[in-house]
Amino acid sequence: MTTSDLVAQIHKKKSFLCIGLDTDLEKIPTHILKEEDPIFSFNKSIIDATHHLCVAYKPNIAFYEAYGIKGWQALEKTIRYLNSKHPEIFTIADAKRGDIGNTSTRYAKAFFEDLEFDSITIAPYMGKDSVEPFLAFQDKHTILLALTSNAGAFDFQTKMVNGQELYKEVLKTSQTYTHAENLMYVVGATKAEYLSEIRKIIPDNFLLVPGVGAQGGSLEEVCQYGMNSQVGLLINSSRGIIYASNGTDFAEAAAESAKRIQVKMLRALDNRN
Amino acid sequence: MTTSDLVAQIHKKKSFLCIGLDTDLEKIPTHILKEEDPIFSFNKSIIDATHHLCVAYKPNIAFYEAYGIKGWQALEKTIRYLNSKHPEIFTIADAKRGDIGNTSTRYAKAFFEDLEFDSITIAPYMGKDSVEPFLAFQDKHTILLALTSNAGAFDFQTKMVNGQELYKEVLKTSQTYTHAENLMYVVGATKAEYLSEIRKIIPDNFLLVPGVGAQGGSLEEVCQYGMNSQVGLLINSSRGIIYASNGTDFAEAAAESAKRIQVKMLRALDNRN
Repeated sequence: MTTSDLVAQIHKKKSFLCIGLDTDLEKIPTHILKEEDPIFSFNKSIIDATHHLCVAYKPNIAFYEAYGIKGWQALEKTIRYLNSKHPEIFTIADAKRGDIGNTSTRYAKAFFEDLEFDSITIAPYMGKDSVEPFLAFQDKHTILLALTSNAGAFDFQTKMVNGQELYKEVLKTSQTYTHAENLMYVVGATKAEYLSEIRKIIPDNFLLVPGVGAQGGSLEEVCQYGMNSQVGLLINSSRGIIYASNGTDFAEAAAESAKRIQVKMLRALDNRN
Repeated sequence: MTTSDLVAQIHKKKSFLCIGLDTDLEKIPTHILKEEDPIFSFNKSIIDATHHLCVAYKPNIAFYEAYGIKGWQALEKTIRYLNSKHPEIFTIADAKRGDIGNTSTRYAKAFFEDLEFDSITIAPYMGKDSVEPFLAFQDKHTILLALTSNAGAFDFQTKMVNGQELYKEVLKTSQTYTHAENLMYVVGATKAEYLSEIRKIIPDNFLLVPGVGAQGGSLEEVCQYGMNSQVGLLINSSRGIIYASNGTDFAEAAAESAKRIQVKMLRALDNRN
């Protein structure tokens, strides 16, 4: 998917919501556990109920990998369902991979070609030759971890390097990589005030923003500091939407929860114009 | 597996060789491709021919993930074969994972409990709460990326933070994590001269050293600067062993190649005593 397709979808749906499909058999409604593939079944219901309110879905691959081969089958069914039924949706493999050269190419092929994801999250620690193999794929997007929303982010990401925090060094250095136009960045919403400084370094790239809601970030502040001329934001919510209810009404509850966020996004987009 | 079991195996076999099972259908002998599960079949032949010469096997998970569900089945068969037939062998899931808290716990369960690997490689960028979930598993080992052997290592890992390189900050900070005794570190052999400084920071932890041979590192130098009282080294070789021949003699050629390294290791262990 091209970035302009994504931007067009945002304006059409008046939403820049990404729904995290962190599907956990211990948290989904118990009546679904009786079905043949409960993970896919849950995802399908969530997608059917929310696809008009969001522009992206982001399965965290760990949740699928934890169930072994069955988990991978459920992931594959989920992405095939999304791509066939809702080809306008932007899909993110939240895999946080990062490996050397030809090994990165393997991961890129697995997620971009075989599973046909539009994008993948990547860890920056191994540098250029671990990131560029992903960037080489046309109309595919590499979402680099810059500033994450967890407590451990302060261990290394905010340490000073060359007179600036490491995550800024990651932003700047990665902009020199070949096909940097295919980069997006993970920036946690718990640090919304950092966004205006981040925008000075990367005015144009999309940001994937976790941590709104459950982890305490404010949607309004993220919009205020992080929006650019192309909107430039995907705001993720996982648990607050997919586990809004664990009864038989879970899909409707998910849609209501997504709708509450989408209404705020509509306002933010209107205020911008 | 406990560290002392690993050390005992090293002294018994006079080897601290780790063989990387980076099994690639484009590189394995063509006659194996006719078999039902060529990846497992290749791995089994390599293991059967080399298990007495090495103390560890390290499948790089990307190579398996690239083949989708079939790849995962081959990985599962490989680790089950290793654990049932050669329970003394130390197994490393070279996965380079790293995610937030409960997601890390998912990965830890998938690799430590379901697949029963002894250890996993982990990226440090997300900090404490992305690493500690792995460290919580008794007699399992978390191998943190410190200084990798690729060119991109110089993008961030060697940048100065608090007056020292980032990878040293990773070594020091990670030593403060709960159950740091379960940490090992990846340190590329292409920078053998860095090892004496690294040993000042982490005198006791095992190092997993890639980059000997194909990538130009010297076994003798790694031993000189990196060995500690418990040996403390696992030296990995992948392509140089498993692709020593692509004819029907591939397993024998792998054993010969492994033997050449093991003889050097025997000498290094003898010189030390």
